[in-house]
Amino acid sequence: MAAPVIAVVGGGQLARMMAPAAGELGVHLRVLVEAPDSSAAQVVVDAPVGVASDETAIRSLIAPAGATPADVLTFEHEHVPNALLTDLLEHGTPVRPGPDALVHAQDKIVMRRRLTELGVPCPRWAALPTAPDAARTALADFLAEVGGEAVVKTARGGYDGKGVRVVSVAEGGPEQVAEWIEAVAEGGPELLVEEKVPFTRELAVLVARRPSGGIDGRGEVRTWPVVESIQRDGVCAEVIAPAPGLTDAEAERARDAAVRIAEGLGVTGVLAVEMFEVAGEDGPRVLVNELAMRPHNSGHWTIDGAVTSQFEQHLRAVLDLPLGDTTAKAPWTVMANVLGSTLVELTDALPAVLATFPDAKVNLYGKGVRPGRKLGHVNVSGDDLAEVRRRALAAAAILRGERPASTDEATENEERA
Amino acid sequence: MAAPVIAVVGGGQLARMMAPAAGELGVHLRVLVEAPDSSAAQVVVDAPVGVASDETAIRSLIAPAGATPADVLTFEHEHVPNALLTDLLEHGTPVRPGPDALVHAQDKIVMRRRLTELGVPCPRWAALPTAPDAARTALADFLAEVGGEAVVKTARGGYDGKGVRVVSVAEGGPEQVAEWIEAVAEGGPELLVEEKVPFTRELAVLVARRPSGGIDGRGEVRTWPVVESIQRDGVCAEVIAPAPGLTDAEAERARDAAVRIAEGLGVTGVLAVEMFEVAGEDGPRVLVNELAMRPHNSGHWTIDGAVTSQFEQHLRAVLDLPLGDTTAKAPWTVMANVLGSTLVELTDALPAVLATFPDAKVNLYGKGVRPGRKLGHVNVSGDDLAEVRRRALAAAAILRGERPASTDEATENEERA
Repeated sequence: MAAPVIAVVGGGQLARMMAPAAGELGVHLRVLVEAPDSSAAQVVVDAPVGVASDETAIRSLIAPAGATPADVLTFEHEHVPNALLTDLLEHGTPVRPGPDALVHAQDKIVMRRRLTELGVPCPRWAALPTAPDAARTALADFLAEVGGEAVVKTARGGYDGKGVRVVSVAEGGPEQVAEWIEAVAEGGPELLVEEKVPFTRELAVLVARRPSGGIDGRGEVRTWPVVESIQRDGVCAEVIAPAPGLTDAEAERARDAAVRIAEGLGVTGVLAVEMFEVAGEDGPRVLVNELAMRPHNSGHWTIDGAVTSQFEQHLRAVLDLPLGDTTAKAPWTVMANVLGSTLVELTDALPAVLATFPDAKVNLYGKGVRPGRKLGHVNVSGDDLAEVRRRALAAAAILRGERPASTDEATENEERA
Repeated sequence: MAAPVIAVVGGGQLARMMAPAAGELGVHLRVLVEAPDSSAAQVVVDAPVGVASDETAIRSLIAPAGATPADVLTFEHEHVPNALLTDLLEHGTPVRPGPDALVHAQDKIVMRRRLTELGVPCPRWAALPTAPDAARTALADFLAEVGGEAVVKTARGGYDGKGVRVVSVAEGGPEQVAEWIEAVAEGGPELLVEEKVPFTRELAVLVARRPSGGIDGRGEVRTWPVVESIQRDGVCAEVIAPAPGLTDAEAERARDAAVRIAEGLGVTGVLAVEMFEVAGEDGPRVLVNELAMRPHNSGHWTIDGAVTSQFEQHLRAVLDLPLGDTTAKAPWTVMANVLGSTLVELTDALPAVLATFPDAKVNLYGKGVRPGRKLGHVNVSGDDLAEVRRRALAAAAILRGERPASTDEATENEERA
């Protein structure tokens, strides 16, 4: 057999970070990129330009004229028409994760309904009726039931805090999302409402599943250690692996929920399960917040901090290759995102960041600078969590354009090792 | 400033393994490859085809029409005409390592002479005269002096056991290298002879140096832990990091010798110093065997086993960026080479090798199979050296086409983690 070919839809940093793993496994990556200079296009040789919603582009990604057809189609984002994926699957192209699984990452109402069926703990929720008056009434009822404050979400199209709005009786209730409610009748995304969970912190469990292997051949599944995810302005800013102070029982419950979802939804590839931790009478509990059916920001720490990275694992899973060891390589790894920068070119900060933190693993995505944009991340590992956090955050700050905090640190690296 | 551009001569696995590090640092890699399907060409977007000895190809690698000129020229092998490099350097292109350093990795006579000047411990050696009769006499004298057996080497063009021949009085002495001796007068490479060192094992020290920083601004230097290198048929087969049973004093002497060479020769980038360990009255000593002025097989363990890999460090060094932490990430890491295979396509062995060893880090080079050819390697890390070695060697054996030793192991991975 020839070396496997994996087709990936989407040319952002997630596809970019699949490239090293593909190279190491000797697997050919073919990535559908948005533009010739997309993040992934800079590091993937076979990177045709096209739109994820364009059927011709997807078909030619899988079977380009004169080139080896792909063994599998996978994704770095969920914005691909499901009807096309179903058609591809029926005509013999493995689509992983498949459209039946993917819909749960595309539609939050479908997701909540299925998780509720599976008995996975979720926040209280309700789908809002499509008729505007009925929606207003249902939302008002829900608000009354949960104490006056809740979160309205568009079922489709939201990410990184977009498509999410907090509403409260005090602020106007249904009027706060009047335009969303009206838009449903005109083809806008359906809406759901969820209780505003009084969480103590956010956790995430990354899990991978492949079709073969596992108990009774149900598909091999592996989870990484549970992490704490710290959001700023609705965007992941920092991840601590493992989540500090988690009891074994809580970690097991969180990992079990993730495995139940991966199996219940028939996911192939990496699945990120974002969770709220809430205080309970018998100790902390977890409620599932969001799903992402692909490598995820909460798993970037695995590149340097785990035996098998989420990117390698995703490629292994979609090729139905045996999954890798997910053990952490250090007591603590902290990932800090670089969200926006005052620099025009992030590499200009390399002299300062590398001199100050010789142990920082800098990962830049080759993207143009825009406010708040995910431009890169830094991983730092070590024994002392406070110090590891400090270093990761300070390194990311330098890449955002801040000056190193101390000249003492800038000379740390000058000693000959 | 725009992101830095690094031009690399040579499209084999060493350039291939620079690609992930370049991507993470946000650095653009431009690699001169031997063929469109060369190992590096499969994973580097900007990979013009050309011959390393072709002046036009090198000049256009540095400054292609309509593209950003390279900030620095570096190498994955030493077979580049030094006159051209000198000319490039004089006309403003940083060539790193520079031709004055590189000559020591190209010419073993120049290397031995310089190391002797620097006081670095070497085997006894002599350059053979170019006139055939004088060469025969000198070789016979040397053999008599060292006890009847010695190693004759071509000063240039040897690698992986090629250009090296053991001669002994009993087997004919100078007659064993008669054709080499005759060839010198006709433009063949000059010859040197070295004592056949009764070594207990082979060690290697990897060191990186950049032009700036360091003590008194002499250039920042960092060494990785000393490793043991196990050769089979003159080719590196296995590397154990760190070298087992090394005393701190011996490790320090080995690292000091490597640093002295890097500084004495003005190396920029990664330098691999291969050494013999010999028993001495006051404990083991080291003698320098060979130099390689680039990432080296003895450093592949650093990809998974050290905070900073040799490939990332090489890129940092040639860009004069601060060097990274070289600390090992695990008590032991063993690298096993995949030398040849009975398989046509190594990826066919992925199901078996990944199922048997979920913790093995497999790295395949995308090269066609030939007997004894370096096709890939496997790194395994852990606490128990015997087990780590067993796993790395067995994983490499599966990639060479052997069947997994035990079906018990093949099911290790089936348990849900």
